[in-house]
Amino acid sequence: MTLHFEITEQPDRIKSLLFSQRKTVERIAAEIQKHNIQYVFLAARGTSDNAGRYANYLLGAMNGLPLALATPSLFTYYKQPPKLKNALVIGISQSGKSPDIVSVLDEGKRQGCLTLAITNEPNSPLAQASDFVFAVQAGPEKAVAATKTYTAELMTIAMLSTALHGTKKAWVELAKVPAWMTQALKQDDFISEAAQRYRYIDQTVVLGRGFNYATAFEWALKMKELTYIIAEPYSSADFAHGPIAMVESGYPVFAVASKGKVFDSMLTMLKRLREEISAELVLISNDKRALSLAQIPLTIPAEVPEWLSPLVNILPAQLFAYHLTIAKGYNTEQPRSIRKVTETT
Amino acid sequence: MTLHFEITEQPDRIKSLLFSQRKTVERIAAEIQKHNIQYVFLAARGTSDNAGRYANYLLGAMNGLPLALATPSLFTYYKQPPKLKNALVIGISQSGKSPDIVSVLDEGKRQGCLTLAITNEPNSPLAQASDFVFAVQAGPEKAVAATKTYTAELMTIAMLSTALHGTKKAWVELAKVPAWMTQALKQDDFISEAAQRYRYIDQTVVLGRGFNYATAFEWALKMKELTYIIAEPYSSADFAHGPIAMVESGYPVFAVASKGKVFDSMLTMLKRLREEISAELVLISNDKRALSLAQIPLTIPAEVPEWLSPLVNILPAQLFAYHLTIAKGYNTEQPRSIRKVTETT
Repeated sequence: MTLHFEITEQPDRIKSLLFSQRKTVERIAAEIQKHNIQYVFLAARGTSDNAGRYANYLLGAMNGLPLALATPSLFTYYKQPPKLKNALVIGISQSGKSPDIVSVLDEGKRQGCLTLAITNEPNSPLAQASDFVFAVQAGPEKAVAATKTYTAELMTIAMLSTALHGTKKAWVELAKVPAWMTQALKQDDFISEAAQRYRYIDQTVVLGRGFNYATAFEWALKMKELTYIIAEPYSSADFAHGPIAMVESGYPVFAVASKGKVFDSMLTMLKRLREEISAELVLISNDKRALSLAQIPLTIPAEVPEWLSPLVNILPAQLFAYHLTIAKGYNTEQPRSIRKVTETT
Repeated sequence: MTLHFEITEQPDRIKSLLFSQRKTVERIAAEIQKHNIQYVFLAARGTSDNAGRYANYLLGAMNGLPLALATPSLFTYYKQPPKLKNALVIGISQSGKSPDIVSVLDEGKRQGCLTLAITNEPNSPLAQASDFVFAVQAGPEKAVAATKTYTAELMTIAMLSTALHGTKKAWVELAKVPAWMTQALKQDDFISEAAQRYRYIDQTVVLGRGFNYATAFEWALKMKELTYIIAEPYSSADFAHGPIAMVESGYPVFAVASKGKVFDSMLTMLKRLREEISAELVLISNDKRALSLAQIPLTIPAEVPEWLSPLVNILPAQLFAYHLTIAKGYNTEQPRSIRKVTETT
């Protein structure tokens, strides 16, 4: 199956991206540093928008850059784009073809901003509209559900942040990602069996926070695209502001809780869900205290640092969505109603 | 019932806010204009975050201001806040008590930014942390589900944008909002009957775009808080990038489609849902072409301009959530698992 192959080839793709593109990203970072960039203005949709959520935390925490997610309709339908002075305008798109994302980059350039395309298609309209192109080099992605282009987009963002920040330790950690990914993929058989239990769910919530807010969104999106269940992503903080009301005993909650700065806050929420409400829990984590709470614990190597954990955590999530699709008897390669390239305006 | 009363008193509250606070907002706008503001950095959660989504479109379209939604955990857990040079930092909170939102304003002030609190509690910690306070004057909100503080927050944002932009026409349109709201509330009995049909739904998606992206989020949040169904909000563009796969014949879709710049794009999506997929449609609109597609058409006065439509559209949505709560036999005043003031960090 193409989708399963594309999930399993991610460690190799990421390794090759990391080693072949370091000079390119260092050159792009050097150009960015010549400009008076005060914030990042980022346009993306779908899976690429989730990569943008990762950028929001990473560029903020590591590089001190605030990030505004573009509302493309202001550029297309309303034709009242905001003034982007001193913004670095970034567009992320697998195909580089979505007209609304291209419009944001075009306008950025028109206003004299530095523009950067992150795409799998270096000859696409998005790439042509940008000052710099960072090709994610995931190879042709044939399955409709994006997997390897997502992790490749995360890796380009991690490399860009590291190149701007410039610590040797970060580059050493980046080099370990492919091995951690390979380790995470070893749970394929376990996940295939575990997914059987959820054959009849039709809804879930997916919780994550901080860097893994992006993971929650992307896990939820794969579930929706492939298994047709309604899976709503939340930060655990927003979840406490209302939506937790819908959880009752046995309600399936999917969550991502990596060791790090927001771990204690996630653990408190997971305990509340399990011990007070008796929710069902499918959990991706590298901490034993959290994993011991889950009916289905999906284990990540303990040493994965929080800032890189989204690159590793999403792999068991992708496998889970894949195997649940098969358990539900659906087509993993061609979900209904969606196309590989969605050209929204 | 307190919740129903708070929904119906909104026209009066908005009228009083508009007439009593115009000078205050003009003074705040004049101060903002003295500074070199390049973008808005906005912190909020829950219902107030949905008011922030409205600000994102309105301040962008009317005032040319890009808007970044804060990720508060960068300020609290990670303690690595971004550099906010030339940002106007805005915090929106009904209670003004959520420590994470206060942290963002504190840091903004520490970095020398202009800070503005929009709150129902002018003596709250959020107000104390800010240079300017815009009190939304909704009166005590006793129901756990926020309704009148939401429309009051929208109105403060609309007034601020108008004061910055300064057209007489906009002030004239603002003055008509209370009457449009009263008109929208006349559907109370119709909505009470219509809600019966949805007694047994347990999930839905809520679609909106542009200015009414906020309305979709807030309608979905009320449904989740009060009726415990999973209701996921989407822009129609993001929806086409994957999640539309989960809609099958008879699937309930709630949508908001006001006349204006994104109307044609919404109408195309609504036609696709009704004519190709045979989805069920509950629709808030002021356009007959759209309303004729819906099983349950909720009608808004035709003359409501798009930029103010979120203030009016949300009223039938609130009534719908209220009446569905009763139809399902739940408590409208005290939803399970949530509190009025959620102090997330």
